[in-house]
Amino acid sequence: MNMTRDDLVARDAADPLRGFRARFALPDGVIYLDGNSLGARPIAVAERVRRAVEQEWGEDLIRSWNTADWIGLPRRVGDKIGRLIGAKAGETVVADSTSINLFKVLAAAVGLRPGRRRIVSQRDNFPTDLYMAQGLAAFLGQGHELVLLPDDPDAETVEAALDAETAVLMLTHVNYRTGRVHDMARLTAAAQAAGAVALWDLAHSAGALPVDLNACNADFAVGCGYKYLNGGPGAPAFVWVAERHQRDFAQPLSGWMGHAAPFVFEPAYRPADGIARYLCGTPPVLAATALEVGVDLMLEADMATIRDKSVALTECFIELLDQRCPRLELASPRDPAQRGSQVSVHHDHGYALMQALIARGVIGDFRAPDIVRFGFTPLYTSYADVWDAVDILVDLIETGTWDKPEYHARAAVT
Amino acid sequence: MNMTRDDLVARDAADPLRGFRARFALPDGVIYLDGNSLGARPIAVAERVRRAVEQEWGEDLIRSWNTADWIGLPRRVGDKIGRLIGAKAGETVVADSTSINLFKVLAAAVGLRPGRRRIVSQRDNFPTDLYMAQGLAAFLGQGHELVLLPDDPDAETVEAALDAETAVLMLTHVNYRTGRVHDMARLTAAAQAAGAVALWDLAHSAGALPVDLNACNADFAVGCGYKYLNGGPGAPAFVWVAERHQRDFAQPLSGWMGHAAPFVFEPAYRPADGIARYLCGTPPVLAATALEVGVDLMLEADMATIRDKSVALTECFIELLDQRCPRLELASPRDPAQRGSQVSVHHDHGYALMQALIARGVIGDFRAPDIVRFGFTPLYTSYADVWDAVDILVDLIETGTWDKPEYHARAAVT
Repeated sequence: MNMTRDDLVARDAADPLRGFRARFALPDGVIYLDGNSLGARPIAVAERVRRAVEQEWGEDLIRSWNTADWIGLPRRVGDKIGRLIGAKAGETVVADSTSINLFKVLAAAVGLRPGRRRIVSQRDNFPTDLYMAQGLAAFLGQGHELVLLPDDPDAETVEAALDAETAVLMLTHVNYRTGRVHDMARLTAAAQAAGAVALWDLAHSAGALPVDLNACNADFAVGCGYKYLNGGPGAPAFVWVAERHQRDFAQPLSGWMGHAAPFVFEPAYRPADGIARYLCGTPPVLAATALEVGVDLMLEADMATIRDKSVALTECFIELLDQRCPRLELASPRDPAQRGSQVSVHHDHGYALMQALIARGVIGDFRAPDIVRFGFTPLYTSYADVWDAVDILVDLIETGTWDKPEYHARAAVT
Repeated sequence: MNMTRDDLVARDAADPLRGFRARFALPDGVIYLDGNSLGARPIAVAERVRRAVEQEWGEDLIRSWNTADWIGLPRRVGDKIGRLIGAKAGETVVADSTSINLFKVLAAAVGLRPGRRRIVSQRDNFPTDLYMAQGLAAFLGQGHELVLLPDDPDAETVEAALDAETAVLMLTHVNYRTGRVHDMARLTAAAQAAGAVALWDLAHSAGALPVDLNACNADFAVGCGYKYLNGGPGAPAFVWVAERHQRDFAQPLSGWMGHAAPFVFEPAYRPADGIARYLCGTPPVLAATALEVGVDLMLEADMATIRDKSVALTECFIELLDQRCPRLELASPRDPAQRGSQVSVHHDHGYALMQALIARGVIGDFRAPDIVRFGFTPLYTSYADVWDAVDILVDLIETGTWDKPEYHARAAVT
């Protein structure tokens, strides 16, 4: 028997996470399925940022480095994120952007495997990861080669690419286009068996599904603050380094906040002992303060419960697409165990279709060339949202009303 | 005849910048002489950040990349800062931290001078600049050497160090400890005459005194958003590249925002045509929004008027120290033409003395090992502030009340 909207309303009523939705500021008339691009705003962030601006900055001024522990923000928020990704205390810091953090750990990873010249990744890794690796390889000038596997490679394909020349396996845990999840434990072990190290980008994982970096014996990881962690637009990112590697290498973005004694103002760099050596410049206080609110909120929920609902939401969405929109081709894996917290479909005019959806209040996003992407964020996405989004999608497609000239006009950011 | 407080009150009444003080949130009972470390809060920033958080993020969500022009922030705010430093439009972007930006332009500078191995700087350059250069040199592994001139070198000393091996002259325009100003035009010309390029850190210059990078024919520059630009704690920094160099080199922190077409999601990096290739990751929207308020406020004033008052404030401060505290040894140049917008003195127990001053409401800062530093920010520092600060300093020293155990206990951030 086909699913009905009432079925989904009933699931919302029984949802153990239902109380979280009221903790987010969601605009009226919007079904927000883009929390994997920019997480929604926690209500509490407005007051917290106001206090940081008016009290900590405005009233307490420079004293807040100590009195408000601004100096401790990168480690404090880092350790909180660490609880979501299987980190030990002292393995994670908040700093810079995902791209910059990737450069730090990729430099470290390459530095740990001198003589090996291959960085193995996949063609549809998020482009900035590839670009940073290309920039690093070109700058280093030692002949490092970025080996790109085909889109969405399976584990066997990845394993077959790992050889005695491989320095680093650099993958994004959950693919940004299709949502396919790599087997972190298996591929980390395979990389290490080949004598390489494993570097994971958790941009679409942290806060989206359970991650246990230490259980997987991962080497390095980076991730994003503004997606599932709800840290705000352009929130600082995080970087994780397995404790066993922290002292091996002083990463080249060796700014003063990574120094063993920043306020001694020595002319020679001496790296801090632990994860702090992955810090660089002055911490982004206002932005990291906003991020902390998002992370704190996520820590109130249980990651396994979030994952259960995430799977249920994406299963519902796919089932409804199958029932009502059978001609849309799924880009995401059907097996929920292989799927992150998103569902993507192919569409030849994906950009226009998404613009039409947005005009009707269903916000997802488009990823070139043909991916229409819907993110599901269990803290604030309801089962009824899933129904309503599909309902609007079906209407647009059946009536052909998605195909208007204004929906084809590209904006600066697509 | 000695200066009196009434003289200074009269100067405040005649100050053409006197209206700006009310535009800043300054706490009662505080004389804030640390705007060179963290600029005071513009009143308007609270409402602007509230709008960015509540409306742009909360209501408009991901659409704000286009509707609020989040994507344009780095260039828009960059160009505004550019007006303060003699940049042409399209030469400046806001991004990352000063340290990270230094890495980008230092990489570019070194890349422009292959075969040359020396980076010439000075021992008391701000440490992060030296650390970043050390990190870059070690990572590059081509034998680049950081040549450190003695503290506060004069122009002749700098010129004598420039030779056929010099790739880059890397200096901070205004020394963070003493406030001594380098002759940018002369030293840039000297660097170029030696076949090197000139890279300037404007951390203590932008918004503090007139800078004209193009008139000086500078090659590269970086600077800080949270000091004289009043951008908020940990505000993003800026990077400037002379138009003639922009296409020469793809800097190695080649993230997606520096790509020619970020939203095409190509696997291969193609640098953007102009200054945008000095961008890296996703822009820090909230923090850059706060910074824009500070920059806008500064653009309402005239830089020459700011400089006139800055010189007058520091001259008054030094004159009062001479009169009332003659045993304090000045660390800053006596010639105002060679002095930035700060006055520093040596003191064997500088840390404790500064803590005692802060306890009395006079906030400056301490820089190891013995520098007591006072910053003067003409938009919100009054002549009466100068009198009152000296009055308290004199009282602490004459009574010996600065020398209490609690003032010697070091905090995390000094």
